[in-house]
Amino acid sequence: MKKIHNFSAGPCILPKEVMQKAAESVVEYNNSGLSIIEMSHRSKDFESIMDRSHAIVRELLNVPENYDVCFLQGGASLQFMMVPENLFPVGGKVGYVNTGVWGTKALKEAQLFGETIEVASSKDKNFSYIPKGYNIPKDIAYLHLTSNNTIYGTQFKSFPETTVPLVCDMSSDIMSKPVDVSKFDLIYAGAQKNIGPAGVVVVISKKGIFGKSGRTIPTMLDYRTHIDNGSMFNTPPCFSIYTSLLTMEWIKNLGGLSEMEKINEAKAKILYDEIDSNPLFTGPAAKEDRSLMNVTFVMKDPSLEPEFAKLAKERNLSGIGGHRSVGGFRASIYNAMPIESVQALVDAMRDFSKKYA
Amino acid sequence: MKKIHNFSAGPCILPKEVMQKAAESVVEYNNSGLSIIEMSHRSKDFESIMDRSHAIVRELLNVPENYDVCFLQGGASLQFMMVPENLFPVGGKVGYVNTGVWGTKALKEAQLFGETIEVASSKDKNFSYIPKGYNIPKDIAYLHLTSNNTIYGTQFKSFPETTVPLVCDMSSDIMSKPVDVSKFDLIYAGAQKNIGPAGVVVVISKKGIFGKSGRTIPTMLDYRTHIDNGSMFNTPPCFSIYTSLLTMEWIKNLGGLSEMEKINEAKAKILYDEIDSNPLFTGPAAKEDRSLMNVTFVMKDPSLEPEFAKLAKERNLSGIGGHRSVGGFRASIYNAMPIESVQALVDAMRDFSKKYA
Repeated sequence: MKKIHNFSAGPCILPKEVMQKAAESVVEYNNSGLSIIEMSHRSKDFESIMDRSHAIVRELLNVPENYDVCFLQGGASLQFMMVPENLFPVGGKVGYVNTGVWGTKALKEAQLFGETIEVASSKDKNFSYIPKGYNIPKDIAYLHLTSNNTIYGTQFKSFPETTVPLVCDMSSDIMSKPVDVSKFDLIYAGAQKNIGPAGVVVVISKKGIFGKSGRTIPTMLDYRTHIDNGSMFNTPPCFSIYTSLLTMEWIKNLGGLSEMEKINEAKAKILYDEIDSNPLFTGPAAKEDRSLMNVTFVMKDPSLEPEFAKLAKERNLSGIGGHRSVGGFRASIYNAMPIESVQALVDAMRDFSKKYA
Repeated sequence: MKKIHNFSAGPCILPKEVMQKAAESVVEYNNSGLSIIEMSHRSKDFESIMDRSHAIVRELLNVPENYDVCFLQGGASLQFMMVPENLFPVGGKVGYVNTGVWGTKALKEAQLFGETIEVASSKDKNFSYIPKGYNIPKDIAYLHLTSNNTIYGTQFKSFPETTVPLVCDMSSDIMSKPVDVSKFDLIYAGAQKNIGPAGVVVVISKKGIFGKSGRTIPTMLDYRTHIDNGSMFNTPPCFSIYTSLLTMEWIKNLGGLSEMEKINEAKAKILYDEIDSNPLFTGPAAKEDRSLMNVTFVMKDPSLEPEFAKLAKERNLSGIGGHRSVGGFRASIYNAMPIESVQALVDAMRDFSKKYA
């Protein structure tokens, strides 16, 4: 098997040992005589997987007692409409901080439900920073944030202090560091970055917040359906959930989220240091808002970019093309990315600058 | 690995070679150096998987040119509300044929959108038959059917002849036999019976039917979003889709749906013949409506059922407990169920009757 350094933005690299164990479970789960993908979701084996999956989310994120955890389908994109459907009161107002493509999409769905306020936006500078110092209206039912912005390489380092309920899309940095869950009414995250494979979403919500929007909510779009049924109202995405459990167990064995954060900081530092010292490269994201997950960088002379892309390909540095709206390059260095791969990228940048600088 | 005869109703048995190949892809997909679960959904490899998945649905079901195919998340349960959201005109009426728990759930969601008519129901006899000879109102926007009823072991052998558009939940018998797609406006099916693992839904829809309900439809709930984006509007459930492709390729290699139907008929015949000839057993479903997928049977003397369940367990006949609303037993004998496993169940029934009859 050839060695690929997988910098994809998501679906993305997962720990080797998780992929190995997940593969084994597709042949046979735990000496049951059955594959994980042919096993009834009502079997004792799968019910145990589901119970442990809920429990480890609680444990890793230190989720308070008065919060529920559930697993859903449909990606964060479906959450963009489930949040207002459940939490946007008829005739009320909600607020959004717009820090990129995903925040814009979330806002667009909320607009279908009533009056929305774009409380702050960094669109004026192509979302290259996280807005700060804005006023949060007191009369909004919630304020929606996107904690990490994969395309632009920005990340909230702290969250607004406010009495307004906070809702946060943490798809691309959940489980990468500790989070104070008690500051939020609702957190959602697509799994396919730091939690597991595509096909499952984690939702963490404060008890008692639902059932107040005055809307008629279809059964599958009502969070209470899934919470009340332990994420088993209907057939769950069994394989994605099991592989997410394995990934979260890997994080736990590594020492949990504080340890994970240290590793992620160390990896990001190597790369940002190179961007700042290498004469050919520069980073478009504001320094104080730089993401530990998605590192964006461009070349001062854009005409050299195809040459660097060629070198990257030769060295099996995969998935580093920047999003078309930012250009240049993006290295996604999620939890499972080994420091050796980050070093391989840095080495390529150095070798390239020796040749061209 | 011990030999289990997996009669689960879903998630359920898949072909051994599919599970083997799926497992290999979780280690490495097609010499790419990457696992199927860490690969970008925008990579050439995954785009090819997606293209081939759409194409093989079209090929196996002989889907006409004027129909679209797409893959969604959320299970058939989310379809229960997506169908009316997209096809139930504001101020109009829709009709449902109620043949069991799933049909009842589908009807319940439609009721949130306006006036519904329960055109026919077999609830009077615990859903043990498929209603026939009912009048279909001309003024309904669509008539919703459930082609196979897993809990009761009934199945439509033919569909109503009507000018009213038909919508059908085919979750538990799609890909088990040929279907005349042109008779339906929309077909949907959760994958986790005959198509693949849990976590993906197939939708086949006639072109031009959407955008007429007069409703404001959130982006993710609008079928056109997914059709227009080749099922890649957001990150799809990559592993479930790839494993579904493998399963459909297995069906194709076997000779397609006509061949599959012959095999399924042969398997079901062995089991129904035993139910009809064995003095201890009887089948609750009306003979003319018997499902080829889910075979329900009870004991004439229910006090013997725990004994038979014990024998079944000893012989590794797994997942044959009947649903609580029917009692007795249910053997789900989907496409991938080998005839040897059906024979093992029949042998157990015979041996049991020799002892107790």
